[in-house]
Amino acid sequence: MLRLSDAVPLSEIVQLLAGRLVRGADSTRIDRLATLESADGTSIAFLSSRAYRDKARTTSAGVVVTSVELADAVPAKAALVEVPDPYRAYGLIARQFNAWLNTRSNPSVHPSAVIASSASLGHGVAIGPGAVVGERVCVGAGAVIGAGCIIEDDAVVGTGVELRSRVTLGYRCVVGDRSLVHAGTVIGSDGFGFARYQGHWEKIPQLGRVQIGADVEIGANCSIDRGALDDTLIGDGCKLDNLIQVAHNVQIGEHTAIAACVGIAGSARIGRRCMIGGAAGILGHLDICDDVTISAMSLVSSSITKPGFYSGIFPLMNNADWERAAVVVRKLPDLRARLRRLESYLKEH
Amino acid sequence: MLRLSDAVPLSEIVQLLAGRLVRGADSTRIDRLATLESADGTSIAFLSSRAYRDKARTTSAGVVVTSVELADAVPAKAALVEVPDPYRAYGLIARQFNAWLNTRSNPSVHPSAVIASSASLGHGVAIGPGAVVGERVCVGAGAVIGAGCIIEDDAVVGTGVELRSRVTLGYRCVVGDRSLVHAGTVIGSDGFGFARYQGHWEKIPQLGRVQIGADVEIGANCSIDRGALDDTLIGDGCKLDNLIQVAHNVQIGEHTAIAACVGIAGSARIGRRCMIGGAAGILGHLDICDDVTISAMSLVSSSITKPGFYSGIFPLMNNADWERAAVVVRKLPDLRARLRRLESYLKEH
Amino acid sequence: MLRLSDAVPLSEIVQLLAGRLVRGADSTRIDRLATLESADGTSIAFLSSRAYRDKARTTSAGVVVTSVELADAVPAKAALVEVPDPYRAYGLIARQFNAWLNTRSNPSVHPSAVIASSASLGHGVAIGPGAVVGERVCVGAGAVIGAGCIIEDDAVVGTGVELRSRVTLGYRCVVGDRSLVHAGTVIGSDGFGFARYQGHWEKIPQLGRVQIGADVEIGANCSIDRGALDDTLIGDGCKLDNLIQVAHNVQIGEHTAIAACVGIAGSARIGRRCMIGGAAGILGHLDICDDVTISAMSLVSSSITKPGFYSGIFPLMNNADWERAAVVVRKLPDLRARLRRLESYLKEH
Repeated sequence: MLRLSDAVPLSEIVQLLAGRLVRGADSTRIDRLATLESADGTSIAFLSSRAYRDKARTTSAGVVVTSVELADAVPAKAALVEVPDPYRAYGLIARQFNAWLNTRSNPSVHPSAVIASSASLGHGVAIGPGAVVGERVCVGAGAVIGAGCIIEDDAVVGTGVELRSRVTLGYRCVVGDRSLVHAGTVIGSDGFGFARYQGHWEKIPQLGRVQIGADVEIGANCSIDRGALDDTLIGDGCKLDNLIQVAHNVQIGEHTAIAACVGIAGSARIGRRCMIGGAAGILGHLDICDDVTISAMSLVSSSITKPGFYSGIFPLMNNADWERAAVVVRKLPDLRARLRRLESYLKEH
Repeated sequence: MLRLSDAVPLSEIVQLLAGRLVRGADSTRIDRLATLESADGTSIAFLSSRAYRDKARTTSAGVVVTSVELADAVPAKAALVEVPDPYRAYGLIARQFNAWLNTRSNPSVHPSAVIASSASLGHGVAIGPGAVVGERVCVGAGAVIGAGCIIEDDAVVGTGVELRSRVTLGYRCVVGDRSLVHAGTVIGSDGFGFARYQGHWEKIPQLGRVQIGADVEIGANCSIDRGALDDTLIGDGCKLDNLIQVAHNVQIGEHTAIAACVGIAGSARIGRRCMIGGAAGILGHLDICDDVTISAMSLVSSSITKPGFYSGIFPLMNNADWERAAVVVRKLPDLRARLRRLESYLKEH
Repeated sequence: MLRLSDAVPLSEIVQLLAGRLVRGADSTRIDRLATLESADGTSIAFLSSRAYRDKARTTSAGVVVTSVELADAVPAKAALVEVPDPYRAYGLIARQFNAWLNTRSNPSVHPSAVIASSASLGHGVAIGPGAVVGERVCVGAGAVIGAGCIIEDDAVVGTGVELRSRVTLGYRCVVGDRSLVHAGTVIGSDGFGFARYQGHWEKIPQLGRVQIGADVEIGANCSIDRGALDDTLIGDGCKLDNLIQVAHNVQIGEHTAIAACVGIAGSARIGRRCMIGGAAGILGHLDICDDVTISAMSLVSSSITKPGFYSGIFPLMNNADWERAAVVVRKLPDLRARLRRLESYLKEH
C-alpha cells in the first residue's frame, strides 16, 4: 500500500477509533496502513483474529490495534491501541486512508460525454469521458458516472451513487442512493424468456425493470436481467461480488451477501441476511428464507424454509481415488439393495 | 410494467391473438400487461399453467387470456379470452406491448461514432454514441449498433441485427440476420491455445473466426472465442443466456438453448434442440447428440449419443449432514469391497 | 481460415521450422494453414497426435508436417516435413501466418482517445478510438491500447503490452511487459471486503493494487480484484482463459494456466506450473503447491501440499438414475452404519 505524503499523529487515529492508547506515544507518526507481515515502523496494523497472533508477535508495525483479549500478542516495541472490535476498526481506518490517498478531484462533466438534453443532473454530479446519458435520465446529487458508462433512457441513478467505468444501466432501471457498481456490469439486459413453438424459440419481450436498493454494492462484469413483467429486485444493503448472474424477476432481501460467480435463475426469491458462497447455483421459482448460508459451488434445487448452513459438494480427491469413488456413486442404488438383501437374509436366519 | 399512454380496446387484442372472446365487452380498454398477481382492472393477464390457477381465482385483472381447459379458474368479473396456447399468446402480446412502449426513434448514426470510410452501412442502420466500426465492415440494412460497441475490421453484421451497448465483434467474425447480442459480450476473443515448451507456454495464434447464425440471441457479458484454424459455429435460432463461455471451435446446433454461466470447452459439438442448464460444464473434444437436456451444474465429461435428460449434482444438505456424507463418499470403494466380502462370506456359509 | 494473397514456397516454411523435407518439392506453394480435414492442395497441415492418424490418411493437404514416428500416416501424394515436435511447429507456423494475415497498420493515437497531459507514452504506442488514459499513467514502448479501454490514474502498462478493446485497468495497477489482455476484462475492481456491524455490511476500502507479471495472457470478461492492503499478484507467464474471477490478494505462481470460468477466492495462493480446469473453484486462505492439476468443476476447499492430479465431480447419469443415486448419497452415513452392524454381527457369530 501507498504511504501518505503527510504522516498523521497517532492521536488522530486513536480519536477516530474511540480507542484506548495502552502503550506508546500520542505523537507517533503514521504514514501507512499495512498487514502485520508487511508493516514497518511508521505503519499501523490490526490484529483482529486469534489465528494471526503468531504474525503479530513478529510484526515490525509501529502501532498495532487489537482487542483486550488479543493484546498480549502485540510486541512490546509497538504502540498498542485497544478497541472493542478490531476488524471494524480496521474498516474505519481503511476508509480514512482511502479518503487521504484518493482525494477526488472536483466533480465535472467531461466534454466527450454524450448527455441528452432531457436528462437531469443533480448538484455536483461527475461524468467521465465517453459516458452516455440517455433521454429523461435522472442522476442524483453527487453521483459519479465513470468513463464509458451507458445510462439508457429513463433510468434513475440515486444520490451519491458511483458507477465505475463501462457500466450499462438499461432503460427505466433504477439504482438506489449511495450504491456502487463496478466496471463492466450490465443492469437491465433482457431476461431469458422464450416460448417453444414449432421447433424454434419465440422471444418474449422483457417489459419489467431492475430496481436496486440503497447502499448496494455490485462487483465487476455481473449481469442483472430486467423482469418479464414485474421487476427484478435487489434489496437495500445487499453486497454482490463479481461475475454474478441475476435472472429476471429474482428478488434478493436486504443485507444479503453473494460471493463471485453465483448464478441465480428466474423468479428465485432469496431472503434477508443470507450469505451465498462463490459459484453456488440457485434454481428458479423457489424461495430461500432469511438467514440462510449456502456453501461455495452448491446447488439449491428446492426451497429452503429453515435458517441454517447448507452444502452439497463432491469432495476433492486424488484423481485415481476419485475415479474409483465415482464408479461406486453410479452404483449406489445397487449397493443399497445388496445391503438390504444381506440384512433381511440375516434377519431370517 | 408501464401503462400505455393510450389504452387499446380488447377487440384489437382478441384479433391479434385470433382468440375467442367468451365473456366481457369488446370495448373494454386495456393499458397494461401484467402478472395475475399485480394486474388491475385495466390490465390484461395470462393463465398458461395449471400451477397458477389459484392466482387466477384471486386476480383483479380486467381481462384474462387462457385455454379452454383452464377457463373455469378465471373469476366471473374478468373478461375471458380463450386461445389454444396461452403462453405463446402471452409472447405475442408482450411483443405488441414492447412495440407500443418502446417506439424506436428514427435510425441515425451518432456523430461521436468512429466509422471507417471503407465500412459499408445498409439502409436504415442506427449506430450509437462512441461506437467504433472498423475497415471493410459490412452492416446489413436495419441493423442497430449500440453505444460503445466495437466492430473490428472485416466483421459482418447481418440485416436487422441488434447489438446492445458495449458489444465487441472481433475482426472477420459474422453475426447472422436478425440476431440480438446483449451488452458486454465479446465475440471473437482468442481461443485458449498454447504449446508447452521448456517450462513455459507458447501462444498459438487463433486464425479462425466466429460465425453466428440467424435469429440467434446471446446474453450479456458472454465470451465466444474465435477458432484456432476452422471457425467457432453457433447455429440458427440458438438462444444463449448471460455469462456463457464458448471456447474455440465449439459447434452448437440449431435451436439449442443454453442457460446462464455455462462453460463449453474447445471443439465440443452440441446437437440441435438441446437444452443446457445453468452453470453446466461441457468438456472439450466430445459430441452431444440432438435433443439432449442437461441439468444445471452438471458436467458432461464424455460424448452423449442418446437423446434424453442427464444430471450429475451433489444433493444439497444441512452442512453437518453433508460433512458426514462427504466422509463416506471418499470411502465408497472401501464400502463396496466390504459389502462384497460379506456377500461372499454368506454365500460360502 | 483465410488464404494468403501471396503463396509462399515450402522451402521458406521448412527453414522456419528447421524441419526435414522428406518428400515433395521445395518449390511447392502454400497459401493456407488448415486442419487435416479442411486442408486442400495448397494447404499445410499438421499431424501432432496419434489420435489423428486416420484423419491424416484421408487428408487432401498439399503438405503435412509431423514427427518421424507418425510419418507413415501421411498419404504419398502429400509433401512430408518431419520435425521433432509437430505441435510446437504448428504454433510457430500459426504465428507466421498470423503475421502475414494481420499486418498491423502503423501505430497511432486516435484523435478521439482522451489522454491526460501527465500520462507518458513510450515510442510507437497505439491507442484506439475512445480509449481513456488517466493522470500519470505510464505506457511502455510499442504497447497497444484498444478501442474503449479505460486506463485509470497512475496505472502502468509495460512495453509491448496489448490490451484489446474495452479493458479497464484500475488506478495504480500494473501489467507487465508483453502481456495480452482480451476485451471486457476488469483489472483492479475492489476486493469483496465488508465488516458485519449491527445487521448490515460496512465496506472496507481496498487499498492494494493488482500486479500482473510479464508474458501473461488474460482472456475476455475476467475480473481481477485489487488487494485489501497488499497486492493481488499474477506471476510471469501465467495464462488465464475467459470469465475468470481472481479475488483480492490471490497469488498465482509463474506459468500456471487456468481454464475459463474458474473462481479463486481471497488470499488463495496457487503455485507455479499448475493447471486449473474450467469452472473449478478455489476457496480462500489456502495454499496449492507447485505442479498441481485440478479437474474441471472441482472445488479445492483445503490446501494441497503434494503435486498431482485432483478431482471432485459428481458423475453424469441419466436423470432417473441420478435421482436414485442422489437419494442414497443423502443416506451414506446410515448405509455405512448398517454395514458396520452386519460386519460386527457376523464377527460375533
